[in-house]
Amino acid sequence: MNFNLIKKSEFDKVRSSGGDWATKMELFADMCRYNTLVAVKKAGSGHLGSSLSAMDITTYLYLNELNVLEVGLDSPDRDIYFSSKGHDVPGLYALFYALGIIPEEKLLMLRRLNGLDGHPEVRQPGIEASTGSLGMGISKAKGMAWAKNYNKSKGHVYVLTGDGEFQEGQIYESLQATAHQKVNNVIAIMDHNKYQTDMLVADVNNIEDVVEKVKAFGWYVVRINGHDYNMLKHTFDAMKKLIDKPKMIIADTIKGRGVSFMEKPLTETFQGKTLYKWHSGAPDDESYDKGLAELTEAINKLSEKLGVGKIQIPENKSEGKPITKLDKEFVTEAYGEALVELAKTNKKFVVLDGDLSADCKLRNFEKTYPDRFIENGIAEQDMVSMAGGLARMGLIPIVNTFASFLAARANEHIYNNAGEKTKIIYTCHFSGMIPAGPGKSHQSVRDISLFGALPNVTIIQPCNAEETKWATDYCINKAEENCMLRLVIGPSPERIQLPKDYKFKVGVGAELTRGTDAILFGYGPVMLHEALVAADYLKKIGFGLKVINMPWLNKIDKEWLNKVVSDQKKIFVLEDHSAVGGLGDRLLNEFVSIGVISGKEFTNLGLTEYPECGTPLEVLEFHKLDGKSLAQRISGINEIETAEAVKQKYTADAPQ
Amino acid sequence: MNFNLIKKSEFDKVRSSGGDWATKMELFADMCRYNTLVAVKKAGSGHLGSSLSAMDITTYLYLNELNVLEVGLDSPDRDIYFSSKGHDVPGLYALFYALGIIPEEKLLMLRRLNGLDGHPEVRQPGIEASTGSLGMGISKAKGMAWAKNYNKSKGHVYVLTGDGEFQEGQIYESLQATAHQKVNNVIAIMDHNKYQTDMLVADVNNIEDVVEKVKAFGWYVVRINGHDYNMLKHTFDAMKKLIDKPKMIIADTIKGRGVSFMEKPLTETFQGKTLYKWHSGAPDDESYDKGLAELTEAINKLSEKLGVGKIQIPENKSEGKPITKLDKEFVTEAYGEALVELAKTNKKFVVLDGDLSADCKLRNFEKTYPDRFIENGIAEQDMVSMAGGLARMGLIPIVNTFASFLAARANEHIYNNAGEKTKIIYTCHFSGMIPAGPGKSHQSVRDISLFGALPNVTIIQPCNAEETKWATDYCINKAEENCMLRLVIGPSPERIQLPKDYKFKVGVGAELTRGTDAILFGYGPVMLHEALVAADYLKKIGFGLKVINMPWLNKIDKEWLNKVVSDQKKIFVLEDHSAVGGLGDRLLNEFVSIGVISGKEFTNLGLTEYPECGTPLEVLEFHKLDGKSLAQRISGINEIETAEAVKQKYTADAPQ
Repeated sequence: MNFNLIKKSEFDKVRSSGGDWATKMELFADMCRYNTLVAVKKAGSGHLGSSLSAMDITTYLYLNELNVLEVGLDSPDRDIYFSSKGHDVPGLYALFYALGIIPEEKLLMLRRLNGLDGHPEVRQPGIEASTGSLGMGISKAKGMAWAKNYNKSKGHVYVLTGDGEFQEGQIYESLQATAHQKVNNVIAIMDHNKYQTDMLVADVNNIEDVVEKVKAFGWYVVRINGHDYNMLKHTFDAMKKLIDKPKMIIADTIKGRGVSFMEKPLTETFQGKTLYKWHSGAPDDESYDKGLAELTEAINKLSEKLGVGKIQIPENKSEGKPITKLDKEFVTEAYGEALVELAKTNKKFVVLDGDLSADCKLRNFEKTYPDRFIENGIAEQDMVSMAGGLARMGLIPIVNTFASFLAARANEHIYNNAGEKTKIIYTCHFSGMIPAGPGKSHQSVRDISLFGALPNVTIIQPCNAEETKWATDYCINKAEENCMLRLVIGPSPERIQLPKDYKFKVGVGAELTRGTDAILFGYGPVMLHEALVAADYLKKIGFGLKVINMPWLNKIDKEWLNKVVSDQKKIFVLEDHSAVGGLGDRLLNEFVSIGVISGKEFTNLGLTEYPECGTPLEVLEFHKLDGKSLAQRISGINEIETAEAVKQKYTADAPQ
Repeated sequence: MNFNLIKKSEFDKVRSSGGDWATKMELFADMCRYNTLVAVKKAGSGHLGSSLSAMDITTYLYLNELNVLEVGLDSPDRDIYFSSKGHDVPGLYALFYALGIIPEEKLLMLRRLNGLDGHPEVRQPGIEASTGSLGMGISKAKGMAWAKNYNKSKGHVYVLTGDGEFQEGQIYESLQATAHQKVNNVIAIMDHNKYQTDMLVADVNNIEDVVEKVKAFGWYVVRINGHDYNMLKHTFDAMKKLIDKPKMIIADTIKGRGVSFMEKPLTETFQGKTLYKWHSGAPDDESYDKGLAELTEAINKLSEKLGVGKIQIPENKSEGKPITKLDKEFVTEAYGEALVELAKTNKKFVVLDGDLSADCKLRNFEKTYPDRFIENGIAEQDMVSMAGGLARMGLIPIVNTFASFLAARANEHIYNNAGEKTKIIYTCHFSGMIPAGPGKSHQSVRDISLFGALPNVTIIQPCNAEETKWATDYCINKAEENCMLRLVIGPSPERIQLPKDYKFKVGVGAELTRGTDAILFGYGPVMLHEALVAADYLKKIGFGLKVINMPWLNKIDKEWLNKVVSDQKKIFVLEDHSAVGGLGDRLLNEFVSIGVISGKEFTNLGLTEYPECGTPLEVLEFHKLDGKSLAQRISGINEIETAEAVKQKYTADAPQ
């Protein structure tokens, strides 16, 4: 399948054309929308909805408002624009390509190693701030604008926010402090496309009346149609004249703008709530072809209206494959099923969600037990402290969101709750470095370390669906202290087979393979798969690797540990985490404490750098954590033959 | 010096008396104020200003509004009250004593081991939520109120907030979500006493117009005089009838209410800003005597007006000591001096503060370089992300606040900034477990672990004033990556003497004592003092302990390490931190990596539980981390004689 972009020369032609200004802008934006669709389809994932809704705003800004193309990307006097939500970055990249900031081959490397990160990263040309976790943008813009004043540099700072993002308290911190500190050269724009993830903001955690809110925080605020170029021009012109307060433009936009069926919600509703499906993920083949056809038609019409001559639109055709459900294991699905099942017999637990119900496979629980499900929106601190209040009243709250956001953003709140000695379960979804497409704002390789120093928390990462159900049951019905349940979000590369006689017991792991040349402790389906691939490679060269599934990341049974390493000289720990603060540190302490470390080698194979962005295999190979690299690192033998039996299940698909 | 409380029987007499209701309330509250002053004076620290400003509100609530005295502290149908800011807890304890919830001896054990925690902790009777870190209260109240609905229990949930607390974004998260989720049985009350720490909220980071703000978030809101009992009654009665929205009462109060000179700001102003001195800390002797005399007079007048007969007010007299400045080393002072000094030659760094300028010894910098100082108020997330923006523009931001709040609350923001590969300095003040009076919300024993898994941060804790200056210079002028500077906030128990030939060099520590029976790695003035005390004890019994100052908590020079342990069999690490994720874990990994662990014992003496509240020595002894206990743990000899030469510098004073 080929992926072809509308060439930069066509964009240049439009830019330099005469004709109606607004029509020219619309045409330029639709051409960018076309390229966005191609780039996301090629990537296999990405955020289309916001890329399309924000496109008119960014097109207006870069072609009319910002001085950056004139003064250069590195000029201290440049105007600065960045997106706080960051989801819309595929659209921004498409615009950057159209403006000559990034080359064609890069745009076709979205979410690939050495390509373009899935969320904004400052290492990319033209990207002014790394974002992807929500709510930080206005604060960052304030810092940049303050520095411009301090440095006596020219230029305004423009920051785009989402609407769901206005559930993050930091937004209000920054509104308040920006006004108080009189950092007035900040202009914030809300891409108010009404949907967050797969539901209406108004249904999840309503932010209206947002104009009243922003005004109450001492900002100038105006609400306009974010697709009307004349209105955009008028508003930005007016805003720049106001210099005694910071300014915010609430731009009403349509999510998925430009592709008719992406502009509409699903006909299916849910408890009276509207559902939307184009927030993230690549389009299926049929939608892709249809979307491109619609954009082609719009481009043709607009180019005719503008009188610029026909725009060369390349051939792009999908393979026409129907949508097929992946026949793969997802540990999150097992978790979601376990919650529904366990709810029948335990009435004490309630489930909290931070706007990721579908991704965290909570939707079935949400539908089955609406009175035990609390949707909190993108407000992790509030969610975690609310859980503290629930627990104080005798309930067992189960808090769900992505690991990066839960463990880091609400860390003090988790500590505060834990100090009350109640029991709360923190389910850290999307833990570990895979999928690696979304980039490091989403890859969670510090969460074990962030929970590790709490005196009363048990950290567990199950390796397959079966163990996930046991772990969920353990956390809810057996554990006497807080639990952190660490779950991989993507498909399991393989279903890890546990020994028939394996019992899920605190501190005790399972031997997945036998061998006496080295032992490797791992956890979770992603890295255990790599461990098993490594064992297969090593077997071919007569090197016996004992692979251990160790789901208990901070509780280790000394007797079991002693036994399992008694026949070993070389110990390896394979983290799906930084080498600091993960399972390795705890195991090493236990080895020393039980006195078995003498005469043994110990190697931690955890990450010592930021996780890269790319497909799973690309990224694992980059960090030398794929099965083959592991076999090399463990055996010390670089020339390992390609073993026929090697299971290498990854494809280029990278969900999220 | 004796400390005597107005007896509970006197409170009972007032409660059961007839007469004017509001006068009765005022009298009761002033009697509680009297006891608060005694308790805080005896404790040597505590928050008087808020205790006094909130007293009329809490007196009104417990004597009139809450059903808790009737249905009992454990009834599921009880009304719930707690303070989100928590500073006011000495006042609440005094009220609890007056109501028979806590006994007399406990109130005289404020901030002592087995006494009353310096911030609210649920282990104390009547305390419904552990608080002390700001902004969590409304979220917790929402959880409690939601659970009441779910459990079909009766009762309202009342939560008191501060005004400075409305700089924390979580407040707005919780306002928004509480309204959206229709958790309408929450009543929030703001003790709007206008001052936060030592300045006006309006000067630090203005929250006005707070009524407009709260209203914009969909709450009922009313603003009243928080010292007017009739108005309180009228308002609470009216609020409870409104059941379609959550409710907030902005109660205008006077900080220090009831003691004339505590109600007033200092005459000294600062850059046009008003200063206030009674936020925290025990009163000096003169103020104590004067405050008690004023309250005695007020009590006498009110009791006469009420016609309840004379209230028995006990004799309380200070020793009349003048205020003397402690002739002790504070590493924070050295840090503050270094900033001012280094600013002369490096124009690139700017200093950010989160409402703790005086405590963090930044005031001198603030005065000398107002254009390089950014006061951000109690908004850690905004402060850290703002620093990210500043750094992106080429400045070196130095972020200051207490370690607990900085490392935990803004953790994701620190990660986000670090990923941009700029350089930011995070100065974590009040790190470690001493002073232990404020309780575990303020004792920071997880911060090293919270920074540890960042790939590009250097963590340093200096041991004395001299080393603090070197470390500050290193961070600002030499380091190429982010730095976390860990500082003790209290006085150094002793000035740690560094070897004459010691050079501050990455990864290299200093030998403070010689010995070959065991080696002990420590850091910071507090724990190194205990280590030296231990070494003194051990010397007396002929046990040679080599004490190492290791300021580099995550960078270790292998060659130096190899040399320093070459003559040792027993290795100990003394953490001022949890045993998980501190220096010990990093050292252990290095020992294994350089292959010197075989045949050696390794023991981590870090905390494995929550840090206790109390005086420094009480708490160190409790955790067996005082010099004598350390000597016993290191030598294995329990019968250690009291050595004459032992330096035990701690007294009962516990700042903060």
